[in-house]
Amino acid sequence: MTLPRILAFDALRALYADGLTPAALVEALIERLAAMTDPAVFISRVPDAALRAAAADLVARAPEPNSLPLWGLPFAVKDNIDAAGLPTTAACPAFAYQPSADATVVARLEAAGALLVGKTNLDQFATGLNGTRSPYGAPRSVFDEDYVSGGSSSGSAVAVAAGVAAFALGTDTAGSGRVPAAFNNIVGIKPSPGRVSTTGLVPACRSIDVVSVFAAHVADGLEARRVMEGFDAADIYARRFGTTALPARLRLGVPAAAEREFFGNDAYRSLYETAIGRAAELGAEIVEFDYRPFREAAALLYEGPFVAERLAAVEAFMAGHEAEMDPTVRTIIAGARGMSAADAFRGLYALEGHRRRAEAEWAKVDALLLPTSPDIQTVTAMMADPIALNARFGRFTNFANFFGCAAIAVPAGLTADGLPFGVQLVGPRDSDEALAPFAAALHRAAGCGSGLDLALTPPPVAAPSEDRLPIAVVGAHLSGMPLNRELAALGGRLVRTGTTAPDYRLYALAGTVPPKPGLARAPGFAGPGIALEIWSLTPEGFARFVAGIPKPLGIGKLTLDDGSEVSGFICEPAGLEGAREITEFGGWRAYVESRTRAAATATA
Amino acid sequence: MTLPRILAFDALRALYADGLTPAALVEALIERLAAMTDPAVFISRVPDAALRAAAADLVARAPEPNSLPLWGLPFAVKDNIDAAGLPTTAACPAFAYQPSADATVVARLEAAGALLVGKTNLDQFATGLNGTRSPYGAPRSVFDEDYVSGGSSSGSAVAVAAGVAAFALGTDTAGSGRVPAAFNNIVGIKPSPGRVSTTGLVPACRSIDVVSVFAAHVADGLEARRVMEGFDAADIYARRFGTTALPARLRLGVPAAAEREFFGNDAYRSLYETAIGRAAELGAEIVEFDYRPFREAAALLYEGPFVAERLAAVEAFMAGHEAEMDPTVRTIIAGARGMSAADAFRGLYALEGHRRRAEAEWAKVDALLLPTSPDIQTVTAMMADPIALNARFGRFTNFANFFGCAAIAVPAGLTADGLPFGVQLVGPRDSDEALAPFAAALHRAAGCGSGLDLALTPPPVAAPSEDRLPIAVVGAHLSGMPLNRELAALGGRLVRTGTTAPDYRLYALAGTVPPKPGLARAPGFAGPGIALEIWSLTPEGFARFVAGIPKPLGIGKLTLDDGSEVSGFICEPAGLEGAREITEFGGWRAYVESRTRAAATATA
Repeated sequence: MTLPRILAFDALRALYADGLTPAALVEALIERLAAMTDPAVFISRVPDAALRAAAADLVARAPEPNSLPLWGLPFAVKDNIDAAGLPTTAACPAFAYQPSADATVVARLEAAGALLVGKTNLDQFATGLNGTRSPYGAPRSVFDEDYVSGGSSSGSAVAVAAGVAAFALGTDTAGSGRVPAAFNNIVGIKPSPGRVSTTGLVPACRSIDVVSVFAAHVADGLEARRVMEGFDAADIYARRFGTTALPARLRLGVPAAAEREFFGNDAYRSLYETAIGRAAELGAEIVEFDYRPFREAAALLYEGPFVAERLAAVEAFMAGHEAEMDPTVRTIIAGARGMSAADAFRGLYALEGHRRRAEAEWAKVDALLLPTSPDIQTVTAMMADPIALNARFGRFTNFANFFGCAAIAVPAGLTADGLPFGVQLVGPRDSDEALAPFAAALHRAAGCGSGLDLALTPPPVAAPSEDRLPIAVVGAHLSGMPLNRELAALGGRLVRTGTTAPDYRLYALAGTVPPKPGLARAPGFAGPGIALEIWSLTPEGFARFVAGIPKPLGIGKLTLDDGSEVSGFICEPAGLEGAREITEFGGWRAYVESRTRAAATATA
Repeated sequence: MTLPRILAFDALRALYADGLTPAALVEALIERLAAMTDPAVFISRVPDAALRAAAADLVARAPEPNSLPLWGLPFAVKDNIDAAGLPTTAACPAFAYQPSADATVVARLEAAGALLVGKTNLDQFATGLNGTRSPYGAPRSVFDEDYVSGGSSSGSAVAVAAGVAAFALGTDTAGSGRVPAAFNNIVGIKPSPGRVSTTGLVPACRSIDVVSVFAAHVADGLEARRVMEGFDAADIYARRFGTTALPARLRLGVPAAAEREFFGNDAYRSLYETAIGRAAELGAEIVEFDYRPFREAAALLYEGPFVAERLAAVEAFMAGHEAEMDPTVRTIIAGARGMSAADAFRGLYALEGHRRRAEAEWAKVDALLLPTSPDIQTVTAMMADPIALNARFGRFTNFANFFGCAAIAVPAGLTADGLPFGVQLVGPRDSDEALAPFAAALHRAAGCGSGLDLALTPPPVAAPSEDRLPIAVVGAHLSGMPLNRELAALGGRLVRTGTTAPDYRLYALAGTVPPKPGLARAPGFAGPGIALEIWSLTPEGFARFVAGIPKPLGIGKLTLDDGSEVSGFICEPAGLEGAREITEFGGWRAYVESRTRAAATATA
C-alpha cells in the first residue's frame, strides 16, 4: 500500500480504521526507509524483524485499531535518549553504551502503542543547533540537500519531514527541538521544563534540558507530549506541574525593530513580517517588547556557566576520549575547563538579573511570537564557520528553557528559493496547552503544509476547557444592567443567552435596590419562558458571587427550555410578597425597557 | 527611668502609652549601653547625639505614641547589612566601606519608627555559626561569658538578650539567625527565602541568604518581619511570595533516634526530649522522620558548591587582602578556589537529589521540631578546634534555606549548668505566619523567659485567619446526617451551632431523597427559631458545594437570632408544595429523631 507522504496521526488512524494493519504499515515503512536518500538521518535502526515483531505484539495486546492513544504510530528517538535493545551514542561512537532500560518517555510512548523505528542523528552531545557536528554525517533539510537540517535534533526532524516517522523525539536545551522543525517545515513542541521526564537522557545542560517532539501537526505533537509528560520522582528536575491559562485573545510580543536581527537574510525577515500580519488577522494583539534581556540571558548559554553543565555531563569521558570527539563540540565543551565554581555562581546571578528584567517585558504580553531561526545556512558554509553561524540560529530560542517557558514552533512559509521558514510561540511556564490552539491556527493560515507535503492541512486544536462554573442571571446582573459589573469584576464571561422552561413566572420584587426580579417555578404553568444569560466564573469567583447575594435571592438550579439544568437565581417565598408579576414581558430587560418608555411618554 | 531588663515590644509600648518619651528611652539606653560588660557586641554605634536626634525626628513626624508599627523601638543591625551613616565592615576592617544608602530592610524599619542603635559583630563574612571568627572579639552568651554567643549573627543576639535592643537583624544562610538565639535564650525568626529583601546585604551564599530577626518574643519578631518583607525587584532572588497554611493540629516531625546526634551533650539531649513532650502536650502529633536527606543536603553547604558562592562574593577582595582575613574564614573560603564550574553543577545536582528524597519525608509532617543546636562550646574550646566544633552547631539548621523553609527558633529551657537550649520549628516555604502560634506556645510553655529575664512571659500569637466562607446548613448536611460527607469531602469545618431568627418556618419537603427540609422566612411569624450549624469552606469548596445543590434548594442569606446574616439554605416556593410544616420541632434533627422513635414504637 502507499503510505501518505507525511505520516500525520489523522491520516494513519483513518487508514487503520479502514483496515490497514500495523504489519502492513511496517512493510511499507521498511520500503520507504530503504529508499531514503539521506544516509545521515538514523544512527541505528530497529531491525526489520524486530519492527515486524513489535507490530505483531501490538495487535496481540490491543487488537482493536486505534484503541491505544498512539496505536501503531511509528516514531523515532534522538540518539541521546535510551531505548532498550539499541545503543545510545549521543553521536559519539566512543561514548556509546547499551542502555539497560528504555528512557521513561520511550516506555510511556510504547505503552501507548507507538512503534519505535530507530535512533536518530544529532549534533554530538546535543551541542549545536545545525546538524553538522556528527561523525555520522550531516542530515540535510528535506527541501534542499545543500542546506543544514538544523540541530541538534537533526535526524528526528528529517525523519518526520521525510515521512518515515509519525513523530520523533528530540531534546531542546538552546533550541535543538525547534530549529530543525523550522528547517524542515514541521512542528516542534518544546514542553515547559520539568513536565517530561529526562530519565534515560544523556544530559547536555541537565538543569534546563527538555525532551521535545517533532510532528507534522500541532495536534499530533500535543498528543505525544501528553502521553510522555508526568511527574517522575527519579528525575531531580521534574516538577508536579500545573496549567497556566492564556486569554482567548492573545497579546503577542514581537521584538522591537532594533532586535529584529536576520543577519542579512531578507527572505526570512519578510516571512516573519508576514507571519506577524497573519497573527493579527487571526485576532492576536501585536505588542512590541524589549528583547534585550532575553538575548542577554541567552548569551549565558554559550558564554557563561551553562557550558560547564555540558562539561559536568561528559568530563569523565573527555578525560580519556577527548580526541575522539567532534572537534567543534570538543572546543566548546573544553572551554568550560577554566571556569571556576565562583564563576558559575556569578553567571547564575547574572541570569537572575536578566530574568528579572525580562519579567517586566512579560508583563506586557501573554506570549511571544518570534522567528524560530533568523537564518539558515548551507552545510559547506556552516562547516567553514561552525561557531559563529551556529550561534545565529539560537538567537531567538536560547532563553526559553532558562525562563521555564513552553514553546511551539510551526511552519510559516517558504522563501522564493524554496527554503522553509518557521516561527515560534513562546509562553510562560505550563502554558503548553494554552499555546496550542493559536499555534495550530498560525500553521493552518500559513498554508504551507507539513514537511514535503505542501498541501497538507493541519487540523485545528480546540481551546482547552477551563475550570469554570456556569451561572444563569435574569435581572440586574444581565449585560448592561446595574449589577453586571459584579460579574465582570470577578472575571465572569458571557457564555450565551437562553430561556427558562415554560413553567417559570417572573416578578418585579418589592423594595429592591437596584430593582431586581425574582424567578419562581410554577409547576403546571405554561408561560413564554423567561430570558436569561448564562455566564461563567472560576470557582473562586462563583463562591464570592454567591456569598455576596443579599436576601431574598440566592443561587439554586434552574431548568432551561431544553430541559437542562443550570445554577441560577432563585428567590425565597417571602421575597415574592408584594411583588408584581411581569411574566408576560418574557424577561427583565423587556420589562425595564417598557418602564423606561412609559416614563418617557409620561414626561413627554 | 529604669528600662525593663528585656526590651519586649509590649513592655516598651506600655511605657510609651504611660508617658515615657523616646528621648527618655534613648537616655536610659545610652546609659545601659555604656554599662555593657561585653566589648564585642557592637562594631559601630550610632553616636549618642545622632540617637537623640533620631528620637526627636520620630516625635516630630509621628507625635502620637505607638502611632507607627515600630514606634520608638530600638534595634541593632548585623554589620553585613548597610545602614547609611555607619560603615559596613562584615567584621573585616580591610573590607569596610561607607554605604551610600540604607539597606532596603533598614529603611523599612526606620520608616516604621524603629531607632537604629548600632552595627553588631559577626563571624567575618557571615562564615561561621559560633561568633569567634571576628577581629572585633568574640561576643559571649549572656548566660556565661566563657561560652560562645553563637554566630554568625553573634552581636545581634547578645544585644537583644542584654536588653540594649528590642529587636536586631541577623542573617541566616546556614543557621546564623537561629544558633545565637538558642545560646542567648531568645527568639530567632528566619523568613522563607525571597520574602525579605537582601538589597544592601554583603552576600555570603547569595542564592540562599536570608535576613533574619532576633527578638525577645515570637510576637515581636513577627512584627519586625512583616514590616521588612515585601517583593524587591532589585533583589534578584526576591519572590512575590504567598501564604502556606498549616493545619490547626500540627504533625511535627522529629528525627528518628539514629539521627539524634548531640555529640555527648546529654543535657541538651534531655532538654530536647522534654521539648518534644511539651509539644505533644500542646496538642501536636509527633511523627518520626528520616533526617538523613536533610543532613546530606546540609553537608553541601560547607563541603560542596556553596563555599564557591562565598568565594564569588569576596574573590576580588581576597585577591588583595587575603592576609587580612580571619584565618579560619580565609581557610574555608579559599578552599573553594580549586572548585570548577563543573563541580559546582554536580553539587547542585546532588542537592536536587537530596531535596527529592527529603520531599518524601515532608509528606509525613506539617513542620519539623528540631534542636536549634545540638551542642554548645566555650570560646577556648572553639578556638582550639574551630572547624569541627562549629560544624556541630549547623547539624540541624543547615538545610533550611536550600529547601526554601521558614523557621522560628525559640527558647526551650536551661541546662543544670545554666546554659540555654533552644528548639526550632521549621516549615515549608511561606509557612512563616502559620508556624508562629505554635512556636509562641512552645516558648510560653517552656517557662524560661527571654534573655536574662527568666520570668518574662511571652505573649501568645493568634492563629492566622484563613480565607474561608461560612455556610449555614439546616437539614441533610448537619453533622451525622446523610449529606454531611459532602461538606467533609470539600474540606468543610464546623464553626458553631446556631438558630435562625424567629420568623422562619421549617418544612419537610415532599419527594426528596434523602429526605430534606426547606426553610422559609415568614415575616411576622414568631416561632422557636430553627436549629442550624454554621460550617466554613474554602472559596473553591463553597463554589463546588453550591453548584452541586439540586432544586428546589439553593444558597441565599439567612438571618440568625442575633440579627446577623449568613449564607445558608433557602428553598424555592415551588419546592414547598406538598411539604409538611415541622416548625414546632425547632429543627430537622429533632424531627428526624421523632420519626425514628415513632417508627420504633410502631414496630415494637
